[in-house]
Amino acid sequence: MKQINIGILGFGVVGTGVAKLLIEKKSLLESRTGAVLNLKYIADLNTDSDRGLDLDGVELVNDANRVIEDPDIHIVVELIGGETIAKELTLKALSLKKHVVTANKALLASHGNDLVVTARKNEVDLAFEASTGGCMPIIKTLRESLVANDIRSMSAILNGTCNYILTKISKDGSEFEDALKKAQELGFAEAEPSLDIEGHDTAHKLAILNSLAHGMEINLQDIHVEGITRVTPLDIEYARSFGYTIKLLAIGKKHGDHVEARVHPTMILNSNPLSHIDQSMNAIAIDADATGKTMLYGHGAGMMPTASAVLSDIADIARNIISNTKRRVPILGYPEDNIKPIPILPISELETRYYLRFTVQDHPGVLARISGVLGRQNISINSVNQKGRNEQGTVPVVMITHTAREEDVQNALSEIAAFDFCLSTPVIIRIEDNNGE
Amino acid sequence: MKQINIGILGFGVVGTGVAKLLIEKKSLLESRTGAVLNLKYIADLNTDSDRGLDLDGVELVNDANRVIEDPDIHIVVELIGGETIAKELTLKALSLKKHVVTANKALLASHGNDLVVTARKNEVDLAFEASTGGCMPIIKTLRESLVANDIRSMSAILNGTCNYILTKISKDGSEFEDALKKAQELGFAEAEPSLDIEGHDTAHKLAILNSLAHGMEINLQDIHVEGITRVTPLDIEYARSFGYTIKLLAIGKKHGDHVEARVHPTMILNSNPLSHIDQSMNAIAIDADATGKTMLYGHGAGMMPTASAVLSDIADIARNIISNTKRRVPILGYPEDNIKPIPILPISELETRYYLRFTVQDHPGVLARISGVLGRQNISINSVNQKGRNEQGTVPVVMITHTAREEDVQNALSEIAAFDFCLSTPVIIRIEDNNGE
Repeated sequence: MKQINIGILGFGVVGTGVAKLLIEKKSLLESRTGAVLNLKYIADLNTDSDRGLDLDGVELVNDANRVIEDPDIHIVVELIGGETIAKELTLKALSLKKHVVTANKALLASHGNDLVVTARKNEVDLAFEASTGGCMPIIKTLRESLVANDIRSMSAILNGTCNYILTKISKDGSEFEDALKKAQELGFAEAEPSLDIEGHDTAHKLAILNSLAHGMEINLQDIHVEGITRVTPLDIEYARSFGYTIKLLAIGKKHGDHVEARVHPTMILNSNPLSHIDQSMNAIAIDADATGKTMLYGHGAGMMPTASAVLSDIADIARNIISNTKRRVPILGYPEDNIKPIPILPISELETRYYLRFTVQDHPGVLARISGVLGRQNISINSVNQKGRNEQGTVPVVMITHTAREEDVQNALSEIAAFDFCLSTPVIIRIEDNNGE
Repeated sequence: MKQINIGILGFGVVGTGVAKLLIEKKSLLESRTGAVLNLKYIADLNTDSDRGLDLDGVELVNDANRVIEDPDIHIVVELIGGETIAKELTLKALSLKKHVVTANKALLASHGNDLVVTARKNEVDLAFEASTGGCMPIIKTLRESLVANDIRSMSAILNGTCNYILTKISKDGSEFEDALKKAQELGFAEAEPSLDIEGHDTAHKLAILNSLAHGMEINLQDIHVEGITRVTPLDIEYARSFGYTIKLLAIGKKHGDHVEARVHPTMILNSNPLSHIDQSMNAIAIDADATGKTMLYGHGAGMMPTASAVLSDIADIARNIISNTKRRVPILGYPEDNIKPIPILPISELETRYYLRFTVQDHPGVLARISGVLGRQNISINSVNQKGRNEQGTVPVVMITHTAREEDVQNALSEIAAFDFCLSTPVIIRIEDNNGE
């Protein structure tokens, strides 16, 4: 039986999970692939501990270069994370004609186009199922299953930390800071959570998905990104009263010669299956022209779900090796020559519906002045909710607009925010309800 | 660019969809696969109509043998359905060393093992993504993505007709016969609906999924099958009062050296994501040891969703051909030598929880006599609901059991049914609530 030699870079949570599967599922993997998937090395700065695994036959080394430079190694698995050392080692591994499997969405989103060029030049595979959606086979689905589809839109919950926090605010009425603290206590959020809660992790994943869906160069910098730090229990309560749930969504849509790509808290109808995805679970809804609406659901992170996705890439490459082929499926789903830069619509040109909340002094004529500004900016109101004043004499005015242009909405909000009666920055949440108005 | 020649057998609904994609998505498919996917033939007894397609360059023929025997044809797409002529043509195509793509679950469930042997002998691929779950990539997910997982259980809604009818009964309180009639009017159900409503179509798909999940020979005949014809609005209402929804599920579980494989109306908790899958939609929930719980959701049937799945198989084979490889992924997910017969647990040995409904005359002591029989059969009751008598003096007695053995339950029901006070055949619905009691 053919032996495939594998080296893991990074013996952290996911690295431990991948090693665990390679060791403990050795006979299942042999039985399914017809190859011996041999874990030859694990490289990490910390080689003091075996992480509870039986590392008999595995070399635990400090120097990643030993793994990459070993001529017997077929597959390098990069699980270091980040964009510095991981980038350098990945490029070097590809240059030494190693197939690379990575879970590193930040690296792919920022430097993926370079990696693809290097992999092509060296005629090796670069696989990254674990980078997006954890155990959900979204990369394979976009690259292989939806091959005859034009992907009209993708809406996805791709960050378990944010979804946990939003669920907590929604179910318990917690304030954001308290929900974050709880998420940190339970291990759902990092001590330094900004990459998650500011939406950047979700944007990294959207950049990857958009590229695969549309055959476009990976483009992170033009994605509009807002996180969840300003979502309040009050807005979630209003959303509920209108029949909506608030989720941090990655939204990718195709419009002729450009795409939409944005990450922000989004109000979705309670009839949308994504509204039921709670706690730290992830889901990706796709609307494609042949399949219609479809959805994948699962754990988007965590040791074993992520390791499962890494193993699917390793098995794919192993099957290529024993079938004497490589680069059978293009890295980004389209052969490199067919991948084009496709422009992302500037957020100012977005057209959608909006939830707006103003905190105002309860004077006569306030509603008229707000409505006047909106009207002059061509923003038409679908519904208004003005509650009674509270003890301070302030009152929240909540509006749902018809489809409007983002630039007009932002102009109107600036104008309204400057009024004396407007007591705090207006809140704006974009709505996705596909009601085709 | 390499040209791959394709012949379709069967120009019905799905055949038309596949031809439509091959014709109208020609440039997308070339752009993604790097090959020309050339539709050379369509064979059907009815060659009078072009089904609204531009068939320029496509030969529409009456005789399927012309397609199969043409030495230029690489891929034969069998979309005739059924187990007679489709079987003969598929075996012949494989024997002539054509790769075969099929959507025919009945054929695979009944004769799949023979087809696999023939494909192996002739060193060609046999692909069937469209056979199960429509556009959902469940075949690829089981064969490729979950490769490092032991699949603990699968629960799936695999028949859109049944799910539509159950949704209709549940939401509108329709009787089964009325819901079926409505489904037929709307085109969700066939004029001859028995294959769907008796559960056999679902069983065909479960036989395929179980084989792929566990590396077992396809085994249809030992699957326990019950359809939905006896599901009543009353039972759905009771289910709701206990927090359950009734769905026709395909259930596959692994227990050491045997598997469970059964199809029947099932009560699932409203917290189970499958309980929200309504109308004609399908979904497959999988619990695997590395991924944990995951789910696929989408259209399980219909012209274009099914055609999309067929195209993913065609593209896979095309990518094999241009990569000079074949049979890269084993047909059933495991190399043929590693596929074993794994016994299916007889339904009599099933252990689960049960919903039981008895229609009885409202006499003193009736409940005691029912309970007495259940107790002697080691069936422990979790809850009882006895409503007031109706005008006829009959009363429904509803019970939810703790985990019990099917054989004991059936024995008890026979005994209870024989009592004078028992006015109709007791109703039994199995419960899946994973509450690990």
